[in-house]
Amino acid sequence: MEFQVLHRVAGSEARLGLLRTAHGDIRTPAFVAVATRGTVKALSAEDVAALGVEVLIANTYHLALRPGAEAVAALGGLHGFTGWKGPWFTDSGGFQVFSLGAGKVHGVGKIASIFPGEASARPVGESLVELTEQGAKFRSIVDGGWVLFTPEEVIRLERLLGADVILPLDECTSPFHDEVYTRQAMERTHRWGERALRAFEQTQGLGPNSHQALWGIVQGGAYEELRRTSARTIASLGFPGFAIGGSLGKSKEDVRNVLAWSVAELPTHRPRHLLGIGAVEDILMAVQYGMDTFDCAAPTRLARNGALLTFSAEGFKLNIDNAAYRTDPRPIEEDCDCPTCQRYSRAFLRHLLRSGELSYFRLATVHNLRFMVRLMDRVRARLAQGRLPTVQALQG
Amino acid sequence: MEFQVLHRVAGSEARLGLLRTAHGDIRTPAFVAVATRGTVKALSAEDVAALGVEVLIANTYHLALRPGAEAVAALGGLHGFTGWKGPWFTDSGGFQVFSLGAGKVHGVGKIASIFPGEASARPVGESLVELTEQGAKFRSIVDGGWVLFTPEEVIRLERLLGADVILPLDECTSPFHDEVYTRQAMERTHRWGERALRAFEQTQGLGPNSHQALWGIVQGGAYEELRRTSARTIASLGFPGFAIGGSLGKSKEDVRNVLAWSVAELPTHRPRHLLGIGAVEDILMAVQYGMDTFDCAAPTRLARNGALLTFSAEGFKLNIDNAAYRTDPRPIEEDCDCPTCQRYSRAFLRHLLRSGELSYFRLATVHNLRFMVRLMDRVRARLAQGRLPTVQALQG
Repeated sequence: MEFQVLHRVAGSEARLGLLRTAHGDIRTPAFVAVATRGTVKALSAEDVAALGVEVLIANTYHLALRPGAEAVAALGGLHGFTGWKGPWFTDSGGFQVFSLGAGKVHGVGKIASIFPGEASARPVGESLVELTEQGAKFRSIVDGGWVLFTPEEVIRLERLLGADVILPLDECTSPFHDEVYTRQAMERTHRWGERALRAFEQTQGLGPNSHQALWGIVQGGAYEELRRTSARTIASLGFPGFAIGGSLGKSKEDVRNVLAWSVAELPTHRPRHLLGIGAVEDILMAVQYGMDTFDCAAPTRLARNGALLTFSAEGFKLNIDNAAYRTDPRPIEEDCDCPTCQRYSRAFLRHLLRSGELSYFRLATVHNLRFMVRLMDRVRARLAQGRLPTVQALQG
Repeated sequence: MEFQVLHRVAGSEARLGLLRTAHGDIRTPAFVAVATRGTVKALSAEDVAALGVEVLIANTYHLALRPGAEAVAALGGLHGFTGWKGPWFTDSGGFQVFSLGAGKVHGVGKIASIFPGEASARPVGESLVELTEQGAKFRSIVDGGWVLFTPEEVIRLERLLGADVILPLDECTSPFHDEVYTRQAMERTHRWGERALRAFEQTQGLGPNSHQALWGIVQGGAYEELRRTSARTIASLGFPGFAIGGSLGKSKEDVRNVLAWSVAELPTHRPRHLLGIGAVEDILMAVQYGMDTFDCAAPTRLARNGALLTFSAEGFKLNIDNAAYRTDPRPIEEDCDCPTCQRYSRAFLRHLLRSGELSYFRLATVHNLRFMVRLMDRVRARLAQGRLPTVQALQG
C-alpha cells in the first residue's frame, strides 16, 4: 500500500491524495461506503461500482459472528465472498465496544450533541460488553453467547477477512466519560495497538490477502492533552496510516479541536481516516483539518428513511415523504446523473416509500451514494484549484 | 391490439402466439410479472427489462387507494409513472373481492388444495367486502374507510391508469362456495362484464392510452355447466381477449377440467390469460390446455422467502437457507445467465438472507424472474418443435 499527497491547500491541513492498494486506487479525500456485513444495504456490488464508489468498509465484529471469518476466508475473503473486488477496509469491533457498551449506558452517539440541549447522558440500556486488559467480551447479537475479542483475535479475524486496510481493536469512549476514565481507556487502546502490531507481524501469510496494512487508531476523547499524547504514541509505533476514533466531544467545536490536536501530532505523509462521520458539513470541515477518508452509515440510512441528499435542498436533504411531491414529475435533483434520477420522478419514489416497496430502498440508496461520490468529486476539484470546499462553493 | 396464433401442437390446445400492443410485443405463452403497486417487488424497471420480461400486471384496487388513479394519470399513466414502458395489464380488484372477502372467511386461496388434507374451509377472518348488484364495497387497507368499486368506476380507474390490457370487475368465488352461490356470482359477473363494456365504450379518449383492450373474465368455479355457460356468455359479448378467473377448484384435476371446459367454449383466435397461477408444473399444464399468458406473485414471493427456482432442483426449488450452502461457492444454478448467478455464490446469498440484508431480496428476485423468462423460452421452443413442454423435457 502506498499513499501520495498530490496537492496541499495553503492555510489549512487540506490535501489531495492517492491511496494505492493491491485492489485499486482511492482518490482522496474519499468517502468510504459502509458495507457492515459485506454489502452496502439494498445494493449489489455492481451497483456500487457503477456509482463510482472506490472503497467499502466492513465490520469484523458482525462478520465474525455471521457467517464467520473462516467461512469468508474459504470463499476468498471479502473480495471473493462479496463480489466487491475493489479496496476494502475492516473496522475492528472497537466501535461495538462503545455502541453495545457505554453508548447504551450513556444513551449517546459518537458526538454527544446529537441530543442538543441535554446537559447529561440519557441511559438507554445495560452494557452488553465487559472490558478487561485482555480484551472485550461481547454478548453476541446472533445467539446471545459471550464472545471474547482480544487484539490478537481481531487481527486473526481480519487476516481471514482479507481487507486492504485493517484496524486494531480499540476502545471508543463516550462523550460522557471523564478525563480519568478516558485516559485509562486511551492507554489500554495504546497497549492493544502494540499487541495488534505484533500479532499482525506474526500472522504474515494468513488469509487471502498478503498486501494488508494495519493502521493505528488515535483515541483520547475531547481532551487536548490526551489526544496529542495518543496521536504521538500511536504515530511512534510505526503504523503506515491512522484513524481518528471517537469520542469526538459534545459539539462541532469539539470535533474541530479533536481533529486539529490529532493531526498536529501525526506524520503528514501518512493517510488519515475519520471513523464514522459522514454528514456533508462534517466532511467538509474534516477535509479542512486534514482528513483523507471518512466512513459513515448516514447517507445510506438517510436514504432508507426518506431523506434524499441534494446540493440544492436546505441542509442538503430533501424529505421525499413530503406531500408536496405527490405528483411532482421532477427527478430528485435536476442535474444528478444517477440511475434513479435518470428515470424516476419524486412522485413515484414517494409512492414506493409510502407503499413500503423494497424497490424504494435501492433507488434511494443509489441516489444518496452517487451524491456522496459527486460531493467528493467536487471537494477534490476545489482542492486541485488550491481552494477549500465550503458549503457555499459546493452548492453552486 | 392484435393477437396471432403462430403454431399449434396437435393433440392439445397448446399454441405459440404473438400479442402485439401499442407498447410492445409479447411472445406467448408468456409469464406476466406481478407489479401490484407499479413495481415488481425489490426490482427497478431497468432490472425487469434486462431480465427479458415482456409484460407486467398492476392492480387497480391497490393503485386507486394509493397514490390514486388521477395521480398516476397526471404522471402519464403506468407507462410514465413507473418507468416500465413496455406492455401493462391491470387486474380489476375482482381478486380483492375474494381475498378480502370469501377468501378470508373461508380461509382459502384460489385453489383449495393449498391446504392439502383439509376437507373443509379454515376461517381466518371477517369479510372486508360488501357485495351488491351495484358493485363491491371495500374497507380500504390504507385508511380503513369504505370504497365502492362499481364496474363503471373500475373502468374509469383503468382508463386513468392506462394499461394495454384491462380487466372488468368480477367476483372471484371461493372453492368452498356451493353451486347455487357460484351461479349467482357468475351471473352477476356477466352483468358486470356488460356494464364494463358499455363503460369502456363511453370512456373512449379518457386517460393516457388510447389503445387499451378490455378482456372478459370467465367465472363459474369448478362446475362444468357453469364454466361452459360463463365462457359462452362472455365470448358472446365480443371481448377481444379472455381471462380465466378463480375459483379453480380443490385439486389439480379440477384446474385441468376448468381450463378444458372454458377453452372449449372460447374462440380459438383470441388470447387467453390465466389469472394468478405461476407454479412451474401448473404453467406447463395450463399451456397444454391452451392458455397464452399467466400472472402470479409466487416466483417473486418465493425468492423473498429463500426458495430459488432452478431446473435441476426437486420441485424446481432450492432452499438457499439450507445449512448445506454455508460455504458453497457455486452460483444458484450453474448454467443460469442471470446477473445474480454471474457474480454471487450460494454462500453469499445465504449470508445476506440470514442477515436480513435488503440486497438479498433483489438478487433473489432477479434470479427467479430470469428463471421464469428462461422457462417460457424453453416452453416456446418446445411448442415451435410441435412438442408439449413436459416437466421432464424442461429439466433437461
